[in-house]
Amino acid sequence: MIKKIDHIAVVVKDIDKAVKSYADMFGFKVLERREGPGGEFVSVMMSAGDIRLELFQPLKKDNSFSRFLEEKGSGLHHVSFATDDIMKELENLKAQGKKLQNEEPIQMPDAKIAFIHPSAAEGVLIELIQRG
Amino acid sequence: MIKKIDHIAVVVKDIDKAVKSYADMFGFKVLERREGPGGEFVSVMMSAGDIRLELFQPLKKDNSFSRFLEEKGSGLHHVSFATDDIMKELENLKAQGKKLQNEEPIQMPDAKIAFIHPSAAEGVLIELIQRG
Repeated sequence: MIKKIDHIAVVVKDIDKAVKSYADMFGFKVLERREGPGGEFVSVMMSAGDIRLELFQPLKKDNSFSRFLEEKGSGLHHVSFATDDIMKELENLKAQGKKLQNEEPIQMPDAKIAFIHPSAAEGVLIELIQRG
Repeated sequence: MIKKIDHIAVVVKDIDKAVKSYADMFGFKVLERREGPGGEFVSVMMSAGDIRLELFQPLKKDNSFSRFLEEKGSGLHHVSFATDDIMKELENLKAQGKKLQNEEPIQMPDAKIAFIHPSAAEGVLIELIQRG
């Protein structure tokens, strides 16, 4: 079962400007800043109240974030739904023939994640995340 | 202060198909179906766990949802942040010179809402909502 929105993710052109903007507007505070594999992107996780917002800025060309910026401009990139059983979610989706970007969960330092293809979810890129 | 994500909103081409899809994929259940002013659109609020998802299908041309569909296709339209003091949020944003779509809150049957212009928030259309 999905439980809550873990975070929303936004692609931006200038992450420092975006961090300042969300801090000024709504009091978001930085939780973590990290660089993606191969220096492809930099990301900052911020929070305000129970909201977690992840900002991504591509640092190189020809990755999914740079293509998103070129095609659509900055804006909402994906939404992440928290689940306590990501394997069960993926099995359910596969049984329904839904198109997945990740057939198996990807192990991150603090969570397992998997993306569902936007074509399966009315154009929305959905991440499933199981923390802990 | 903003508290949590009240809901995320998605524009779709076929709302009945979208309702079935989100129900099948994640167990979302319909809370409310309503038609917009002048029959411009139909919307369905759904929930799963603590997640609320609002689907919009334009029924006429030349409104913000139909233009969104034409320009970007179906997908994430806006995110709604819950606050307990929408007036204070708007005053803070105005004091910073941020561009708003609504300078004053709009009174809905069950809430006050106001939209911030995407240009003020890195391309993200943000709704502020004060319920009750």
